[in-house]
Amino acid sequence: MKEVYNNGYYQVFDEKGIIRIESVNGGAVVVPVTADGKYIVLKIYRPNLQKTMMEFPRGFLEPGEEPEEGARRELLEEIAGTGDEFLSLGTATLDSGISGTVNHFFLSRNTECDTEKLQEEEGIKELLFLEEEEIKACIRKGEIIDSFTIVGFAKALACRGKIY
Amino acid sequence: MKEVYNNGYYQVFDEKGIIRIESVNGGAVVVPVTADGKYIVLKIYRPNLQKTMMEFPRGFLEPGEEPEEGARRELLEEIAGTGDEFLSLGTATLDSGISGTVNHFFLSRNTECDTEKLQEEEGIKELLFLEEEEIKACIRKGEIIDSFTIVGFAKALACRGKIY
Repeated sequence: MKEVYNNGYYQVFDEKGIIRIESVNGGAVVVPVTADGKYIVLKIYRPNLQKTMMEFPRGFLEPGEEPEEGARRELLEEIAGTGDEFLSLGTATLDSGISGTVNHFFLSRNTECDTEKLQEEEGIKELLFLEEEEIKACIRKGEIIDSFTIVGFAKALACRGKIY
Repeated sequence: MKEVYNNGYYQVFDEKGIIRIESVNGGAVVVPVTADGKYIVLKIYRPNLQKTMMEFPRGFLEPGEEPEEGARRELLEEIAGTGDEFLSLGTATLDSGISGTVNHFFLSRNTECDTEKLQEEEGIKELLFLEEEEIKACIRKGEIIDSFTIVGFAKALACRGKIY
């Protein structure tokens, strides 16, 4: 397997014409839920898609960082957010056909954040506080199309009443 | 933006140390549901993860192929499956941070398939016919970790009672 690209975050390999892409340190996704049960969703501009997306906070882990630690750091950096309990929602693959990378998902309970302290240099423009049925409607209408966000929501629903 | 890799299915670009990966023709995911409301899930060996995964059928589109056409073809190739109606569940991104690629999702209704005609050369070993609550339990327990599959299931739930 030959490495054809490495930018410190992602490595791309080729093995006889088959691509493989791996995140160097992996990543963490946070499903932030407020004390009154609303989901906190970022409006974030994504240059690759040339549009503002609705997404849960996420980011790469730093070298040696534990997934929960990285998840807490990202929440703090992106929306000055904190949760009083982080529950593991397990992992999900980036794309099992081309990668062995799995990302870690957490539900942050009783999340508080500061809408005046958004990480604007990452494209974060605004926060939305949505009910479960509003998230479902956004998924149905194609307003939420980010895979990490949809996976995080599905995991939260699958775990509700079981682990929280 | 400089192309650093292209195997005909994926292109990888670099722009000043930022990676971008795009599927050349895009892909389609099928959520196959039987006449009695069960979801058909593949057990498929994924070399990148060195494990057998539980996934919905999916694949790349061929050049010029319409998404629904590709979805129907993949279902037929992978499990000799047909559905009497294909409903669009919209799209989802591969990874909005590194890609503009979106994949197309369809729900195949009244799906029939042939468990004796699985596409073994693609690693497909067995089919499971699962109830909604069983899928949720698999997600909760980490038995289903494939993002495409979790997204397809979440989309199907979000659309139920609305478009089907």
